[in-house]
Amino acid sequence: MSDAFLHRFLHRHRVTYAECTIGNHVYHSRYLDILEAARGEFMRHVGHDLNQLQSEGFIFPVIEARLTYHRPARYDEVLDIGLALIELTPLRLGVLHEVRRADGTLVLEAVTRHVCTSPEEKPRRMPKPLVSALRPWVLVTASPEGSE
Amino acid sequence: MSDAFLHRFLHRHRVTYAECTIGNHVYHSRYLDILEAARGEFMRHVGHDLNQLQSEGFIFPVIEARLTYHRPARYDEVLDIGLALIELTPLRLGVLHEVRRADGTLVLEAVTRHVCTSPEEKPRRMPKPLVSALRPWVLVTASPEGSE
Amino acid sequence: MSDAFLHRFLHRHRVTYAECTIGNHVYHSRYLDILEAARGEFMRHVGHDLNQLQSEGFIFPVIEARLTYHRPARYDEVLDIGLALIELTPLRLGVLHEVRRADGTLVLEAVTRHVCTSPEEKPRRMPKPLVSALRPWVLVTASPEGSE
Amino acid sequence: MSDAFLHRFLHRHRVTYAECTIGNHVYHSRYLDILEAARGEFMRHVGHDLNQLQSEGFIFPVIEARLTYHRPARYDEVLDIGLALIELTPLRLGVLHEVRRADGTLVLEAVTRHVCTSPEEKPRRMPKPLVSALRPWVLVTASPEGSE
Repeated sequence: MSDAFLHRFLHRHRVTYAECTIGNHVYHSRYLDILEAARGEFMRHVGHDLNQLQSEGFIFPVIEARLTYHRPARYDEVLDIGLALIELTPLRLGVLHEVRRADGTLVLEAVTRHVCTSPEEKPRRMPKPLVSALRPWVLVTASPEGSE
Repeated sequence: MSDAFLHRFLHRHRVTYAECTIGNHVYHSRYLDILEAARGEFMRHVGHDLNQLQSEGFIFPVIEARLTYHRPARYDEVLDIGLALIELTPLRLGVLHEVRRADGTLVLEAVTRHVCTSPEEKPRRMPKPLVSALRPWVLVTASPEGSE
Repeated sequence: MSDAFLHRFLHRHRVTYAECTIGNHVYHSRYLDILEAARGEFMRHVGHDLNQLQSEGFIFPVIEARLTYHRPARYDEVLDIGLALIELTPLRLGVLHEVRRADGTLVLEAVTRHVCTSPEEKPRRMPKPLVSALRPWVLVTASPEGSE
Repeated sequence: MSDAFLHRFLHRHRVTYAECTIGNHVYHSRYLDILEAARGEFMRHVGHDLNQLQSEGFIFPVIEARLTYHRPARYDEVLDIGLALIELTPLRLGVLHEVRRADGTLVLEAVTRHVCTSPEEKPRRMPKPLVSALRPWVLVTASPEGSE
């Protein structure tokens, strides 16, 4: 995967003891907590913070998560979490995350898939301004033939 | 503190990697999660489970917690959590917890204090049957003179 | 996916407040903690507990996790976690987990993939008795032609 | 308690869904994780980060924690964590924390007490430069008589 998308949106996180387990590395489930914080900041950055959306009746439960662990992250390391979208429809969102150490070493790649629902967990189409604000963040991959 | 109350209500917990941090011991905040599970089982045992109480409009937010850490607990150890009440009024609950290893070694002593409130977090008197069911679990300490 | 493997190894878990988030459902990362507890009990059940293996210099870091969230689980629900293996080599382990409510409703399907390493995180072949003990737990799927 | 010490060292934290539980408030144990992050930044600020100290053989396990919960904190709120010391000897450290919302509302007061030990958890005197660097952060309370 190219590093290019990392420059699109970046969130920074400092690893705590609370996140580590025996052997001095971040426990594998804690990354999902860290990614959630990154997505929250991303949504704020695009002008639609999740708290506001929730108060308007839109929530984004996770329906799928795929995590590939490349290298351990250690206590007190600074992690850079890069974000881009790989799916965007009025009902669904797919988010790609890359977690890297300060020196660029890839720690984790992860995709989370979300549906847009009401607080009662019924599918609900995202507001149009939200879809528009998210569209520029969809990762565009060059077609193999380089055509267009 | 006497061991006596341990025999009143006991909950058992097996330590996971998720709960441990660097140096192979349970991270200090995870005990509060373990104690919550123990209180939930205690309430079920006395016939008033927290889920039922919540559906009837009674919740028990923590207003104070005091934890004294005596010995570390390690991965895969079985912990016994003993519970007793040290305060009981229609509006307040004080719970004493002792966490011990299988060999009896004291790991943690903790007190949590709770108020009874509505889901909107307004103080609300506990139902009388609940107070009655909890009363036998209040820890009675002999007065120094041995009198009544 | 057939329910059959659920009968092979089953771990039970009661949902706590600590595991839930806003909207009364288990937060998506907490399932990984619950699955870890289930795997720990599974390994003990097959006669090779992880603590013993760790003391002998074998650990099993997660290199990949895939979670598909089907239905939310709520506070105080009892969850049954069924386990089976889908990959077994001296260096790698793939574990399939199904989480169901007491009434059989599927909550979560998850696969975690692990490597066997030394405590210094160097690949290390599992002891033969461990591989033998795990073999019967590998999920065998009938080939489409029904041949062999 | 006076607000004065808040100006001594301040750490900022944004509340995530991972930290919240049913009823939209931060789960009571998660504050200890947040306080740990604040202490880590405080130690870095005074020039002795915990990671460096650990590599030199000094760790600071928690032996006591007292938390008083004043007001709930909600999803996405920004919390200010103010820190000061209330005990400092070569072997022990007492840290007072105040957590406030952006508008100054007091959310939590907490004290954690730590011992300085070797990685094998044997008591060990802190390095003198560390004690000197920490001394200015000890909270000085005016004596009632206003004397010396």
